[in-house]
Amino acid sequence: MNAINKTQPRVVGLNVPAEVGMSLDDVSTPALIIDLDALDKNVASMRDLIAKMGMRHRAHAKTHKSADIALHQIEHGGACGICCQKVSEAEALVEGGITDVLVSNQVVDTKKIDRLAELAKRARVLVCVDDLGNVDNLSAAATRHGVTIECLVEIDCGAGRCGVRWGEPAVEIATRIGASDGLVFSGIQAYQGAAQHVHDFNERKQKIDVAIQQVADTVDMLKAQRLKCDIVGGAGTGSYYFEGNSGVYNEMQCGSYIFMDADYQRVRDDRGNFISEFENSLFIWTSVMSKTKVDKAICDAGLKAQSVDSGLPVIYGRNDIEYIKCSDEHGVISDPDNVLKLNDRLKLVPGHCDPTCNLYDWYVGVRNGKVECLWPITARGMAF
Amino acid sequence: MNAINKTQPRVVGLNVPAEVGMSLDDVSTPALIIDLDALDKNVASMRDLIAKMGMRHRAHAKTHKSADIALHQIEHGGACGICCQKVSEAEALVEGGITDVLVSNQVVDTKKIDRLAELAKRARVLVCVDDLGNVDNLSAAATRHGVTIECLVEIDCGAGRCGVRWGEPAVEIATRIGASDGLVFSGIQAYQGAAQHVHDFNERKQKIDVAIQQVADTVDMLKAQRLKCDIVGGAGTGSYYFEGNSGVYNEMQCGSYIFMDADYQRVRDDRGNFISEFENSLFIWTSVMSKTKVDKAICDAGLKAQSVDSGLPVIYGRNDIEYIKCSDEHGVISDPDNVLKLNDRLKLVPGHCDPTCNLYDWYVGVRNGKVECLWPITARGMAF
Repeated sequence: MNAINKTQPRVVGLNVPAEVGMSLDDVSTPALIIDLDALDKNVASMRDLIAKMGMRHRAHAKTHKSADIALHQIEHGGACGICCQKVSEAEALVEGGITDVLVSNQVVDTKKIDRLAELAKRARVLVCVDDLGNVDNLSAAATRHGVTIECLVEIDCGAGRCGVRWGEPAVEIATRIGASDGLVFSGIQAYQGAAQHVHDFNERKQKIDVAIQQVADTVDMLKAQRLKCDIVGGAGTGSYYFEGNSGVYNEMQCGSYIFMDADYQRVRDDRGNFISEFENSLFIWTSVMSKTKVDKAICDAGLKAQSVDSGLPVIYGRNDIEYIKCSDEHGVISDPDNVLKLNDRLKLVPGHCDPTCNLYDWYVGVRNGKVECLWPITARGMAF
Repeated sequence: MNAINKTQPRVVGLNVPAEVGMSLDDVSTPALIIDLDALDKNVASMRDLIAKMGMRHRAHAKTHKSADIALHQIEHGGACGICCQKVSEAEALVEGGITDVLVSNQVVDTKKIDRLAELAKRARVLVCVDDLGNVDNLSAAATRHGVTIECLVEIDCGAGRCGVRWGEPAVEIATRIGASDGLVFSGIQAYQGAAQHVHDFNERKQKIDVAIQQVADTVDMLKAQRLKCDIVGGAGTGSYYFEGNSGVYNEMQCGSYIFMDADYQRVRDDRGNFISEFENSLFIWTSVMSKTKVDKAICDAGLKAQSVDSGLPVIYGRNDIEYIKCSDEHGVISDPDNVLKLNDRLKLVPGHCDPTCNLYDWYVGVRNGKVECLWPITARGMAF
């Protein structure tokens, strides 16, 4: 049993599924492909939407984990910076050229706090806080490293995960941040994660209305203590139009809009229509690898090619066949008219984009049926 | 948008979650840790079991995707070789020192067939077949490369995925293989994947009994055509004692036994007890990262740290707390007695080991509370 030294990197991607310039048909399957025209449209749509709403947009890189896409969002999509969820993810993205990063999550482990402070020497670094002791530890690390860490107090506005109660508990932490060396109180983090995928418009609106009221009240209470919120952040792809038009939030954190997925395609607007401002740009490129039954085909994209936590993938542009079952290495496709043949290629819209992207080492960017680029998934697996 | 050349590798693991010699408590979370004592016991148990049953064991590396563990299974666990599921996986494992590989799956894409033939220059290579045209394509590639590819005819013995019907369709393909240049007919692949996780003993036995009968009849029909099955392969961790004692199968392909998982712990033996010959050796090491509610804690292992397709993880050795909800980056832990504190460490038994391992770049091997080794997950992401 051979141990290895921690400084020895693991090299991946010596085998990649595609080459620049090849036809999409020649890309090895399963592969994660991006329709670059659709991605560009989504980036432009968000740029126009935030301009119209007078909002800032801090694009959430937890969706794509790619420095290339994050830079594209900043350069062409009007994003003021990015969010991510883990210190290792922030490290990878700063290494990839990003200079303004909010870790929209708590960082409470001593060594991780140290790494965060170290990172603040190379980029603007913000982090969320929901614990008084954590404020002291962040302050000590920032002081030790001679850096400034900006802190947002996180409010649990309905997701039932991290964050303190709105109002007094938030003010207490903000006050402590404001009094701590090396830290700056920059505002509030109030992301209602449990509302994003609520398909019904009114139910979704109701959840966000509650959040907006809690945030508004907290902002007022902070103001009374002379604690100014430069950032009132939150909002995702499923709810941004509520926060974006609230007059309370000023910074949105949408991530999935860049790709969309099968579950987001089930979210409806106020007229019962599907959300139409963004389109599917992310697909799993798969092939039929076994066809021994007249009414079924087996494709090569199973649980290691996608996350099925939010449901099975949808076969793009096809109503005659359906992805009906997923096991480790295989997908079962119902083929009632027996139209599929061995090696037929299919585009799957993944059920849930974020954890699906975290399975791949590369994005294969495609335009007009040709591979235009390969982008490494910079922060893949960076969960710690 | 910068394109990259296909020969440029992506280097990962410059940040690793642990160092050899450190205390388990200091390992960054979430991390995938292996209890090396438990792993060694599982390897020894399988060695003893196959000796007792007079079976060969071709350990399934799709579970762990690690060359280090595969070599350990061969050197100390009596394994005659390994199985894996994809050509890229086989390439990575041969690169890691494995010399006898069955791709227990169909390889039908022209370029993949070519890579498989290329690999046969460096290792004994076997593959499964369920299509006559595929036999011709494999034969052409083997001839072109001057290699031999061994073929197993795959029978669908109940899983409803790849494989032809038992009996005549299998004989037809075997005959074609036997008559093809560059190929050798080596036997039958009959893995009943849908039976492995059936919790009830009798229901599981019934499914495997059906498979055993189909395989026995097919072997007889092949024998009548002078087609000898050197390998009659199949069987997983949930069913191996049926195939292993059948007198029909001669090669088992267990994978999960090396780690076990929460779902396999629900599989019962004939007395209604849990399977006891293997123990949990794989855990997700996680920490409490938010504790703002008296009856709940939030840990840092969510959907990017585990696959929940077979259910949520179980918190190892704890009955007082429960992992109740999983989102992208967080796990919600019910903590009715309010015993958890920020930074508390917990060991999770993943719901399903195979797709969970495929999320990480490293195994952190632990013995007596200390990190003994770091093993790269050699074939992580190698799905194509």
